[in-house]
Amino acid sequence: MTLTILGCHAATPRTFHNPTAQLLEVRGHLFLIDCGEGTQVALRKSKVKFARVKHIFISHLHGDHFFGLIGLISTFTLLGREADLHVYGPKGIKEIITIQLKLGKAWTNYNLIFHELDSKSPQLLFEDEKVEVHTIPLDHRVYTNGFLFKEKLGERKLNIEAAVAAKIDNSYFRKLKSGADVVNLKGKLISNESVTFPPDPPKSYAFCSDTAYCPEIIPQIQGVTALYHEATFLEEHKHLCEKTKHTTAQEAATIARDAKVGQLILGHFSTRYDRLDRYLDEAQPIFENTQLAEDFKVFEI
Amino acid sequence: MTLTILGCHAATPRTFHNPTAQLLEVRGHLFLIDCGEGTQVALRKSKVKFARVKHIFISHLHGDHFFGLIGLISTFTLLGREADLHVYGPKGIKEIITIQLKLGKAWTNYNLIFHELDSKSPQLLFEDEKVEVHTIPLDHRVYTNGFLFKEKLGERKLNIEAAVAAKIDNSYFRKLKSGADVVNLKGKLISNESVTFPPDPPKSYAFCSDTAYCPEIIPQIQGVTALYHEATFLEEHKHLCEKTKHTTAQEAATIARDAKVGQLILGHFSTRYDRLDRYLDEAQPIFENTQLAEDFKVFEI
Repeated sequence: MTLTILGCHAATPRTFHNPTAQLLEVRGHLFLIDCGEGTQVALRKSKVKFARVKHIFISHLHGDHFFGLIGLISTFTLLGREADLHVYGPKGIKEIITIQLKLGKAWTNYNLIFHELDSKSPQLLFEDEKVEVHTIPLDHRVYTNGFLFKEKLGERKLNIEAAVAAKIDNSYFRKLKSGADVVNLKGKLISNESVTFPPDPPKSYAFCSDTAYCPEIIPQIQGVTALYHEATFLEEHKHLCEKTKHTTAQEAATIARDAKVGQLILGHFSTRYDRLDRYLDEAQPIFENTQLAEDFKVFEI
Repeated sequence: MTLTILGCHAATPRTFHNPTAQLLEVRGHLFLIDCGEGTQVALRKSKVKFARVKHIFISHLHGDHFFGLIGLISTFTLLGREADLHVYGPKGIKEIITIQLKLGKAWTNYNLIFHELDSKSPQLLFEDEKVEVHTIPLDHRVYTNGFLFKEKLGERKLNIEAAVAAKIDNSYFRKLKSGADVVNLKGKLISNESVTFPPDPPKSYAFCSDTAYCPEIIPQIQGVTALYHEATFLEEHKHLCEKTKHTTAQEAATIARDAKVGQLILGHFSTRYDRLDRYLDEAQPIFENTQLAEDFKVFEI
């Protein structure tokens, strides 16, 4: 899994700070998560092939998380896109996009498929043989979901030396990867475990923004390889969290610790702080393996 | 009049090219003309005080001319704006903006006043004692207006030396500027022309984008001080103009020549050309005083 931060700042796009957008590359997919204003320019700067983005997940309908979507959809049209595009987001997102396409007489020349969300329970949004994507219901001023991306358990890995020594014909190697026992060239049954290694443990990534401190999500994100969690405020502004339904760095670290995640990435920083390392100062005493998101930073998960 | 180009490129925002947006400073007003995606960031880069923008004019509902509007309106709210904001644009623009504010539960805390346009004749949009703004109906794939900004004739200018020599009390100086004759300290009537200079000739600026070649606008823009005219294509792609309803550099120069404007500024460049000076090569033989727009370039008109 490779996570590219396209933007990780709260509220408004600024000269050197982008609002929320991320790209998650996993098992051949390139998932776009949120799409603040300017995301298409950030994608260009990241040299991403636009046609590879086939699924866009929008957490909620605040501008810093979706105002770039209509522009990206339109640019796909101008670039002659043919591949289907799936957009997952809160109920209403279809109307926002389609009224703009209609009034601009600018319908897409590709299939644009909306998956509108209104459930307050986790939903399975996407699944194929390699990956699953679920919603993570969050607690914000408007209806909001995080997203949980889970690899499925992959194939077993061939222990080539052992397989050759066990005189297994290489036409059986695919079958071995699928976990089956096979018969060797001498007619003897060879147990799978003796000539294969277990698959890599599947990785998982949870994106949680925007939200008030919400320990209800802990069972769902328990043990994820990486958690991106919003941390809009530092402790000195904790009183603002209640009104705005955001989280402090300490609270995000508490979620990470209690969910026993592998690593924590903080983002959605308020513009009021000059020194972002203050977020680390507050989070790391609670959860050590914490890093800060940064526009265009790439995390190998 | 000072014109700041915030963006002058067609179709999609790119790493180093912004879509259409301009700021016109005239007699204390700061008018924003069009608002492609990323305009709020371009405004920040130009160090503009956001609160000074009180009137936004949107030519048409293609994304490269208005996708930045919702973000700018939202940012004004986040910055605590109190001043009224007037938005002039095609019918439908109010619905596009309000549905996004409604679904984001993010109503503005200032008065947001829409002036929706659907007339195919020139309309007076704004007038005060110093300035008038009119629509210029254009010919594009969707309903589109250019905008004509006209200074009104200012006050006469005091010839201080002559006024003192004519023994006029300085309490009459305001009256002199308004054009009236006055009585001097010796009771003699002094003619206004003998102690004042005429006001500067009023300036005017016409913004015309996007449009097919449209000589019907010539009477309305006759003699303007400066004309911004779209020139999406060069002659080699003239065949694309009919389908897309755009203009070539030669056609824009023909409009400028026939309307006897003071200067021509070309913009809305297609991304297909590497060398923009080719636009000048084609326009200047027809209208010599032609310049190219450029993001963040400032024109003193």
